[in-house]
Amino acid sequence: MNKVAIVGVGHTKFGKLQDKGLMDLLSDASLEAIQDSNTSDKNFDSVYVGAMSPSAFNNLSGVASALVDKIGLIPAAADHIKNGPASGGSAVKAGFQAIASGMSDLVLVVGGEKMTHITTPGYVTANVATLTHPEAERRHGASLPSFAGLLTRAYLEKYDAKLEWISDIAIKNHKNGALNPNAHFQRTIESFMESAMKKGKGTWENLHEFLNDDKTNPIIADPLRLFHVCPISDGAAALVLCNAEEAKKYCDTPILISGIGQATDTQIVFEREELTTLKALRICSNQAYKMAHKSPKDMDVAELHDAFEILEAVQSEDIGFFQKGEGAKAAHEGLTEIGGKIPINPSGGLKARGHPLGATGVAQVVELVWQLRGEAGKRQVDNAKTGITCNFGGFGNNILSILVERM
Amino acid sequence: MNKVAIVGVGHTKFGKLQDKGLMDLLSDASLEAIQDSNTSDKNFDSVYVGAMSPSAFNNLSGVASALVDKIGLIPAAADHIKNGPASGGSAVKAGFQAIASGMSDLVLVVGGEKMTHITTPGYVTANVATLTHPEAERRHGASLPSFAGLLTRAYLEKYDAKLEWISDIAIKNHKNGALNPNAHFQRTIESFMESAMKKGKGTWENLHEFLNDDKTNPIIADPLRLFHVCPISDGAAALVLCNAEEAKKYCDTPILISGIGQATDTQIVFEREELTTLKALRICSNQAYKMAHKSPKDMDVAELHDAFEILEAVQSEDIGFFQKGEGAKAAHEGLTEIGGKIPINPSGGLKARGHPLGATGVAQVVELVWQLRGEAGKRQVDNAKTGITCNFGGFGNNILSILVERM
Repeated sequence: MNKVAIVGVGHTKFGKLQDKGLMDLLSDASLEAIQDSNTSDKNFDSVYVGAMSPSAFNNLSGVASALVDKIGLIPAAADHIKNGPASGGSAVKAGFQAIASGMSDLVLVVGGEKMTHITTPGYVTANVATLTHPEAERRHGASLPSFAGLLTRAYLEKYDAKLEWISDIAIKNHKNGALNPNAHFQRTIESFMESAMKKGKGTWENLHEFLNDDKTNPIIADPLRLFHVCPISDGAAALVLCNAEEAKKYCDTPILISGIGQATDTQIVFEREELTTLKALRICSNQAYKMAHKSPKDMDVAELHDAFEILEAVQSEDIGFFQKGEGAKAAHEGLTEIGGKIPINPSGGLKARGHPLGATGVAQVVELVWQLRGEAGKRQVDNAKTGITCNFGGFGNNILSILVERM
Repeated sequence: MNKVAIVGVGHTKFGKLQDKGLMDLLSDASLEAIQDSNTSDKNFDSVYVGAMSPSAFNNLSGVASALVDKIGLIPAAADHIKNGPASGGSAVKAGFQAIASGMSDLVLVVGGEKMTHITTPGYVTANVATLTHPEAERRHGASLPSFAGLLTRAYLEKYDAKLEWISDIAIKNHKNGALNPNAHFQRTIESFMESAMKKGKGTWENLHEFLNDDKTNPIIADPLRLFHVCPISDGAAALVLCNAEEAKKYCDTPILISGIGQATDTQIVFEREELTTLKALRICSNQAYKMAHKSPKDMDVAELHDAFEILEAVQSEDIGFFQKGEGAKAAHEGLTEIGGKIPINPSGGLKARGHPLGATGVAQVVELVWQLRGEAGKRQVDNAKTGITCNFGGFGNNILSILVERM
């Protein structure tokens, strides 16, 4: 198997990008990655686009075919990879396999989504809910936020944990997002609280009091409130991949993709062996560790899929950083902050960087590349040499882990 | 690069399948392929699903994740590959790369679509038209049938060809389809004419007179009429792929995928160098021939993408069987019939086998496997040892060719 290196990265601002369409975002991130890689456009063999719902959100099909034309990569092969909110991670895996197999020498992977133009209430959440089982779940009104609420209750009860610890994850991720110029929310929760006070909406002794106030932080899926869930965002992120043996041609600091794992679990959440354990993550992260000859304790930094803040706690356990039931407490104790035992989501995560569905899995890898190159600016994790991601397709029934390291 | 073999195939009936949903079709074809391969379910590493629009047609996302659960392949990795009507071909390529890279040992590839339940007039054609350029094409009313009409006019004029020769392709494909128990239309056009006569709709001297009658064969996109275009169909087809070195463990007659090519061209049809030449097909078929160390004259049988009958003529030229401008005439002269110089679409093609978008690229390969194994029944091409496909995503702007041969 050929070894695969990342030699270029691109990342648009995430957020409410009113003057950009989906094709603009994919194209902006791609061109930035190509420029970053010092490759020549004409050499690309293949392009993989990860996006969840261009059909439903943008009335577009064939987005990969359209992209190669828009950015001048014809006649490169082009495919669109879909795996719900893990479409980006799956696109990275597809690009990896194209090079690992020897079918391609130079590959562009880009993930993106454009959603904030949709004004029909509930449209986006209903579209994402098409990932749930139509008969066992969806017809009863289940959605991804409702499962996140359920998981939070089960976790808090089983492990005698506190909702405040879950809030601490949001506080940390907003703190990190404030240091990330590409984040959707470049603001601490403290700054939201101060604004609310200035506007006369109330006064609060501390962040947790602010986060428990129904006026400023309404319930979304009990017990989860607004600041416990990620926003709807626009954005795109891109990678240029090549055979690791050629990597130095393009880039002084190539980063190796040394492990990739992907695993599935029951679609119906009720049928899982245990609600508070992400079995698919245990399997796929172990695949990635094994492939890279690494273990959780070798990781310097991680980007996890905190579409809901409870998920970061549970994932930090099932990816091997903490014992079961210890993840939320570890966050509360600061172990996952930049400078902590294992920094998680220095980018701000889905909570603060934002979550343009198909972009997320690629953006997680882009953040790790910046961290491993030492280019993460104010949110730099000291001397980060190895990192891992968790990218969620569906509610835990299709998960990818991608492990990267310095070459 | 590991060599990749096909050790099992599955194929539902194509047509108007009123009592089956998309997940049923994907699952039926998959289980048939798994049974055909003598593999044990638990050994599958990866599943690739090719489907164009489960979101728009079936309100489903995460169809690959759902399928692994439905057919008991958890925790296999699962991804959904989209490339318009070439989603099936792209899924085959993804499965090929998974094994070629060494990331997977045993892979299920399935393509399918469920469309005939949709009763809103124009809904399916409008969805397929989301492949066209939104501003340069779609806003002016362009659709895939309209481009096919345009291409037909240009071809007939440029090469002094006759519309009757294009009709001859439809006549041949219906004749072949009548021999295929999985075809949507298992009827010759002669049989349609006889039925119309019995019903008192008219009398005709011969098939061409019948095919020129506005009552029985109305214009769809001038000069193309109903019998020049493929139907809207439901159906699914599946392959089991493994490392060729292991193939004899599962199957006495494994078939090798010895070449795969994929190339893109301008999205906007107007911007093509020449309307009547499919440049992407010339590139991707050459990639496939080169990879397999074969040339067009080595081919014993081909499955081409006759969504519109003009396409079979043009593809038969650009894939290297005939000189430019000779494809339609060659069909008229019978060179592409079973028993002819190069039998094309012994399955009945998209015209008669039907065209459940995502299924087609996989079904083409399944037909070649049956032909190469000598299991194609009444439509068997004598001693077929090597075959090639052409699968179209968009209107010629993203094309795959897959070359298979006996091991």
